[in-house]
Amino acid sequence: MLEPILRELSRGDCLGLLGSAAVGRVGISIDAMPAVLPVNFALHEQTIVFRSGPGTKLSAATCGAVVAFEADGYDAEGHTGWSVMVRGVAHEITDAALLEQVRTLPLDSWALGDHADHFVSIETTLVTGRRFDR
Amino acid sequence: MLEPILRELSRGDCLGLLGSAAVGRVGISIDAMPAVLPVNFALHEQTIVFRSGPGTKLSAATCGAVVAFEADGYDAEGHTGWSVMVRGVAHEITDAALLEQVRTLPLDSWALGDHADHFVSIETTLVTGRRFDR
Repeated sequence: MLEPILRELSRGDCLGLLGSAAVGRVGISIDAMPAVLPVNFALHEQTIVFRSGPGTKLSAATCGAVVAFEADGYDAEGHTGWSVMVRGVAHEITDAALLEQVRTLPLDSWALGDHADHFVSIETTLVTGRRFDR
Repeated sequence: MLEPILRELSRGDCLGLLGSAAVGRVGISIDAMPAVLPVNFALHEQTIVFRSGPGTKLSAATCGAVVAFEADGYDAEGHTGWSVMVRGVAHEITDAALLEQVRTLPLDSWALGDHADHFVSIETTLVTGRRFDR
């Protein structure tokens, strides 16, 4: 079995790849257990933004907490691809001017259900990523 | 914006979808922070199996711990799709007979680097999933 060639990516490369993706996964703790939930997201001024519902487990577990965020892309056979992981503090966006901006982002709430009218941001404090090829 | 139609999936449906996927993400804690790492995986007798390297952060954080595992699939626009989350205890596979079986699984170590000659299993203790459509 061929071993992959791995290349670490710069912060700029990672943010570029995040800008090209639409679906990522948020890593949080729910009921003292790790959980990974998919979200439709967009990058807004170097910050991850996604929609969430008030009172959901996702909202409760993210806001004010350090969370992980991952996005990736790969070919059908899984032989080449990339992955980026962000770790930073998540906040509910409450600033009126910022809310007006993020409401224009192409964000669905497909994985979350109805009433996902809250917006959550994740700071891109720690960003790591790599490309793999063979 | 149209809201999605969500349908909860049975355990059987979830395992069927996992069997059709090749890439998932493991949610763990590294250095007291959540982390989400992609892995190439296979389903072996209702257990998630992936390759890992000895001494890696992934190995250290998974073995003996309760971890989350997520896989998903969606159309290019992100309008329809599915996601499944598994939570259960991860173990390094050390049983010789079982190792012989899992070595035949179509598992690459692409996201992990060289020397990923260890195999980790995740019990499918808690399985949840849903389909979304609009």
